[in-house]
Amino acid sequence: MKNMMHNKVSRLSSFIAICILFLLVTGNGLFAEKPYAVVIHGGAGNIAKESLSPEQIEEYNMKLAEALNAAEEILKTGGTSLDAVEAATRILEDSPLFNAGKGAVFNIDGKNELDASIMCGLTNNAGAVAGITTVRNPITAARMVMENSAHVLLTGKGAETFAYEHGLDIVDPGYFFDQRRWNQYREFIRNNVNRSRSDFDMKDDNIKMGTVGAVALDIHGNIAAATSTGGMVGKRYGRIGDSPIIGAGTYARNDACGVSATGHGEYFIRNLVAYDIAARMLYNGQTLQDAAYHNIMEKLVDQGANGGIIAIDKDANVVMEFNTTAMFRGFVKSTGEKGVWIFEE
Amino acid sequence: MKNMMHNKVSRLSSFIAICILFLLVTGNGLFAEKPYAVVIHGGAGNIAKESLSPEQIEEYNMKLAEALNAAEEILKTGGTSLDAVEAATRILEDSPLFNAGKGAVFNIDGKNELDASIMCGLTNNAGAVAGITTVRNPITAARMVMENSAHVLLTGKGAETFAYEHGLDIVDPGYFFDQRRWNQYREFIRNNVNRSRSDFDMKDDNIKMGTVGAVALDIHGNIAAATSTGGMVGKRYGRIGDSPIIGAGTYARNDACGVSATGHGEYFIRNLVAYDIAARMLYNGQTLQDAAYHNIMEKLVDQGANGGIIAIDKDANVVMEFNTTAMFRGFVKSTGEKGVWIFEE
Repeated sequence: MKNMMHNKVSRLSSFIAICILFLLVTGNGLFAEKPYAVVIHGGAGNIAKESLSPEQIEEYNMKLAEALNAAEEILKTGGTSLDAVEAATRILEDSPLFNAGKGAVFNIDGKNELDASIMCGLTNNAGAVAGITTVRNPITAARMVMENSAHVLLTGKGAETFAYEHGLDIVDPGYFFDQRRWNQYREFIRNNVNRSRSDFDMKDDNIKMGTVGAVALDIHGNIAAATSTGGMVGKRYGRIGDSPIIGAGTYARNDACGVSATGHGEYFIRNLVAYDIAARMLYNGQTLQDAAYHNIMEKLVDQGANGGIIAIDKDANVVMEFNTTAMFRGFVKSTGEKGVWIFEE
Repeated sequence: MKNMMHNKVSRLSSFIAICILFLLVTGNGLFAEKPYAVVIHGGAGNIAKESLSPEQIEEYNMKLAEALNAAEEILKTGGTSLDAVEAATRILEDSPLFNAGKGAVFNIDGKNELDASIMCGLTNNAGAVAGITTVRNPITAARMVMENSAHVLLTGKGAETFAYEHGLDIVDPGYFFDQRRWNQYREFIRNNVNRSRSDFDMKDDNIKMGTVGAVALDIHGNIAAATSTGGMVGKRYGRIGDSPIIGAGTYARNDACGVSATGHGEYFIRNLVAYDIAARMLYNGQTLQDAAYHNIMEKLVDQGANGGIIAIDKDANVVMEFNTTAMFRGFVKSTGEKGVWIFEE
């Protein structure tokens, strides 16, 4: 009896010892906090504080928080950064508050032409669509291009055919209509009626606000970035800005950072803003903050260009840099830090 | 009388002294050789030497030399690098030997869809067109976008409207027809008839050979780069490759280098090959040769991607790097160095 008792205790001790050993070996995965973070934006521009009512500010903040929460829910349960940035971007696309998806600005012909791109920092793969008019969530079309084609950038009717063939949610172009955007378009046309078609003031902030984007780092150490836009009010000639251009409006690379940009797209293309931030980190040893500051607050300011970026590096540092008075933005980190903002702090 | 004589001699001496001083001060501009250089390509691919007849090789070499001569004529008389790269690229576009302009490959629908871009290393300005079908010289359309619009990238019908409004040479789409390309297209369709539309072998070299490009440094120290292509045989879904994407297929910056790329465009987009070469020079102190080698012979080879680049740095160093068995290429320098090549040396 005593012997049996001893045996049982002995087995129990062995079992406990093995459990402890197991926990020690795998402990890093079970207990150590693997950081995650997500940052989003809904466009940058020069907005007077008094031009938004408290109700409007509340509406923007609620929608930004909703997008952040959706992304965080994915990240904290071990989901991927790609799923997180797609989920956040879809929520912003579905909201008429922002210039992407529903509520996109109108082009010169009174149509909504949408651009989006996404990049995976783990695989170096990327996908983008430009000039599409019937796909409800352009960011999902961009991801479909990345994951289900040999291509990076598909455009126009061809991109729509691709999206249709791959079962994406197709809508009537009228789905994107928003009365506020239509009024803005009509005003743009009135103001520019006497100008030549090449002569519109493309530096006017009101005509290009509201691009959306998201960048995330997941607990597996993978970074992803996504950007979606309706472009500039009254854009013509099949103009494509930086949002669907990898390295200009969107970039992600695990050993450096993920970036999503918003602003005067032509300048972001010429300066390769998103990739330049990564290149300065990789080749010049700059921090994400320094690389972002140089691009947005020095180079773009010197060139007279407005805009901003959101970014996350591999250590979960979050940067939200903009040279305008406002950028709709917010972030959440696994440390518990969290917030949404519109104006400069 | 003697005094007057003395005065005249004195004045003459002073005049000569001033002339000598003037020449000494400005001599650098008058006598020192300001270097110029131009390098061109007509595409990279894996071609067996025996697949080209001596007559075909001669034909390619003659056309490459013609493009180089046109560019050199501009550069040696003090013309700009922008004029030089446009002139060289137009000659290659007008030749059915290359996959750009006349002789471009056919897309899935049996149409020629053309892309081109150009960048000025002095101003940081850039212009590009994608998916156009009726502009005889896409590179001239790209330059027109750069110089006469607030935009960088115009696409499709919109880009054609822009070109038409700006008086460019508009042709019937049939102008681009070339029997050799049509046969290649028919063969592509036959070979892929049983494949799904997403499943074509995009790594097959024959379907994407022949992009053209030029990079030049002028005696004013300004660098320019240009690239023009018909893209991939059988391309679909409005696919756009790297040629019209600034930083991927084309880049120029006076304090670093100018680059024009050719090859499997999706990889050049994901890796931002053209801009990465400049960034490595600017931020990492690498030479043009090292930065180009790393991108083409290491990064792209590791990823299984074919292609090459031509480039010139601010000191007139010329690089022609390719990881295929052949790249149609050539360069001329103010030092008198000159040559055209097809296969590896």
